[in-house]
Amino acid sequence: MPDPVVTLTTDFGDDGPYVAAMKGVILSVNPAARIIDLTHEIPPHDIRHAAFFLANALPYFPPGCIHVVVVDPGVGSSRALLYIESSRQRIIAPDNGCWTLLPEPSLVRRIENPRYGRPHISATFHGRDILAPVAGWLSRGLDPANLGTVTNDWVRLRLPEPSRTDGHVSGEVVFVDRFGNLITNIPGDWLPELGVGATCVMVGSEAVTHRVRTYADAELGTAAALVSSFGTLEIGVVQGNAAERLKAGLGTPVKIC
Amino acid sequence: MPDPVVTLTTDFGDDGPYVAAMKGVILSVNPAARIIDLTHEIPPHDIRHAAFFLANALPYFPPGCIHVVVVDPGVGSSRALLYIESSRQRIIAPDNGCWTLLPEPSLVRRIENPRYGRPHISATFHGRDILAPVAGWLSRGLDPANLGTVTNDWVRLRLPEPSRTDGHVSGEVVFVDRFGNLITNIPGDWLPELGVGATCVMVGSEAVTHRVRTYADAELGTAAALVSSFGTLEIGVVQGNAAERLKAGLGTPVKIC
Amino acid sequence: MPDPVVTLTTDFGDDGPYVAAMKGVILSVNPAARIIDLTHEIPPHDIRHAAFFLANALPYFPPGCIHVVVVDPGVGSSRALLYIESSRQRIIAPDNGCWTLLPEPSLVRRIENPRYGRPHISATFHGRDILAPVAGWLSRGLDPANLGTVTNDWVRLRLPEPSRTDGHVSGEVVFVDRFGNLITNIPGDWLPELGVGATCVMVGSEAVTHRVRTYADAELGTAAALVSSFGTLEIGVVQGNAAERLKAGLGTPVKIC
Repeated sequence: MPDPVVTLTTDFGDDGPYVAAMKGVILSVNPAARIIDLTHEIPPHDIRHAAFFLANALPYFPPGCIHVVVVDPGVGSSRALLYIESSRQRIIAPDNGCWTLLPEPSLVRRIENPRYGRPHISATFHGRDILAPVAGWLSRGLDPANLGTVTNDWVRLRLPEPSRTDGHVSGEVVFVDRFGNLITNIPGDWLPELGVGATCVMVGSEAVTHRVRTYADAELGTAAALVSSFGTLEIGVVQGNAAERLKAGLGTPVKIC
Repeated sequence: MPDPVVTLTTDFGDDGPYVAAMKGVILSVNPAARIIDLTHEIPPHDIRHAAFFLANALPYFPPGCIHVVVVDPGVGSSRALLYIESSRQRIIAPDNGCWTLLPEPSLVRRIENPRYGRPHISATFHGRDILAPVAGWLSRGLDPANLGTVTNDWVRLRLPEPSRTDGHVSGEVVFVDRFGNLITNIPGDWLPELGVGATCVMVGSEAVTHRVRTYADAELGTAAALVSSFGTLEIGVVQGNAAERLKAGLGTPVKIC
Repeated sequence: MPDPVVTLTTDFGDDGPYVAAMKGVILSVNPAARIIDLTHEIPPHDIRHAAFFLANALPYFPPGCIHVVVVDPGVGSSRALLYIESSRQRIIAPDNGCWTLLPEPSLVRRIENPRYGRPHISATFHGRDILAPVAGWLSRGLDPANLGTVTNDWVRLRLPEPSRTDGHVSGEVVFVDRFGNLITNIPGDWLPELGVGATCVMVGSEAVTHRVRTYADAELGTAAALVSSFGTLEIGVVQGNAAERLKAGLGTPVKIC
């Protein structure tokens, strides 16, 4: 059986020693753990970005992987730390809603047992002092029942929902990728069944009139609407930057006319 | 035998879920794969940067590693996806020339067999839906003959060549590293056999008159020419930034007088 | 026994092929090595940042890990390369003081034996040509006695020390993290035993009057002093950026009144 996988998703960036210290702690508990970086570039304290990230990354992993998430503006407060089973993945994360765009969990426990944390718990870095060692123990086969009590009470992230009334579809930009592509929360199957051709999508006050299946279907520099790899409406500019061209970003309203 | 190595080279950056999703897909096909990040900071859609990167990284790996390359401005078009054997490495990449600065390949196949991709192939993310699972299968021992037909027809990157006529050597900057060092395409053994001392290299319209073996041979702040770790002419500023000082960048012409 | 861990700490950034080449070289010597990135974002040539990083990351690793450090402004000069045992870790690094904030070493050797480097040693990239292959050999069980002679002579990083005279405590900022938190070199146990409440810390010319145990103890946007996860005085702004707010950075003097 391959060594157990422990992934890391944080907002720590890479220049400081925070992530490295967590890796050391995990390996100190389980020298056989296979540590995989998912990202350390979640914008600082951005729960919503973390939630989008996790919902679109974790379901691709094989069952049983352990995912440590440290985006934790409430560190040191009374916010709980949670053990979650969802999509056949095992997640440990602060109770701030960052994992709640994943499918409804089959099990959530509070992490309460001090036995699996480090002997001294700092007030500001529970990632290193609690979550990392707990991940190490879980990867060694610890039964999660040892961590703490089952709970049905956790923070749920509330996000604006896309709407569809009288044939009017509206939503917003929920992610801007490195290429400047605008990913919306409008399901791809809400798009009119027009196939490739003319369309009318308003991104803020800018109209996008091309509909394509993929970027290669339009000319260089054309702004076009398509179904993203996330399965939602995306607006991109062929080999250009849609966010810059359309002066759009996170939260920009998007409508299909 | 150690678990198989699968490396990743992309232009996705680290903040979005693209790279993480690929890692999940690879592990879902082969839970024993050892995933190693080479870079996710290729500038967006920059085939030339990717080609320089791969040519100067892959040959250092032991035989048989699998290298997944996703710099893919033509995703969704009719561009092929390729399986390549070169330098005893195994590369899977879009057919856009990004791997063609490596030594002439011993084998190239088109990746055509849908059996080794994911069941649903998105129009914009073949890295996740085709290349990642194919890498997983290859790392499990899949015979590449199953992927598709052998081809002798692929895109070759055409780059300006350095020239040497009547004792005049000219070339250009092909890579600027994080320190601001200017790496050129002029072979190190074209440099006059002067050893350390005076020289005359024109970088754009700026003259560099020091020739050193290594940065420690000149005083702090001196601009100097040397043979780079890539084996080519490099211009650096001792503990300074040559790109800024000489107002030079990718493509800046370089001449030896 | 799990495969041996080799970590990498460099100032190379991620866009160039330097780090990838080192990974290839390590795996070429020991295909079973488990390579773990600690950071490649040490600011270029910043020995002091590297020293802070290593002192706060390496002690968390299990005994016997091999840590390759390449922050090497003196590459190619007569500066030595060292093999160090400290905190039960094994470190290979240039002799520039970057590791000397770790506890006093139990053993230091010069790396002198050309047998364990690559056949051709470039003048500017000893990370790839010497340190990476040496790490590979050590991870295969090479006795460090083969590397070179024991030495008691190495560069020690001299840093300003915090002081405490007549009840006046002063020090400075030694690290600014991604959140803008200001980490100082003033030991946490030098703080007056006031617990949570009023305090007076001068950061440059700005007064910070709140003392908290953790960020959750003060209101959003409040500047507050606390004991950092490094065990030292830290000044942060609750869900804000202290470096920006207090116009402070590396080296800013900090006093407790």
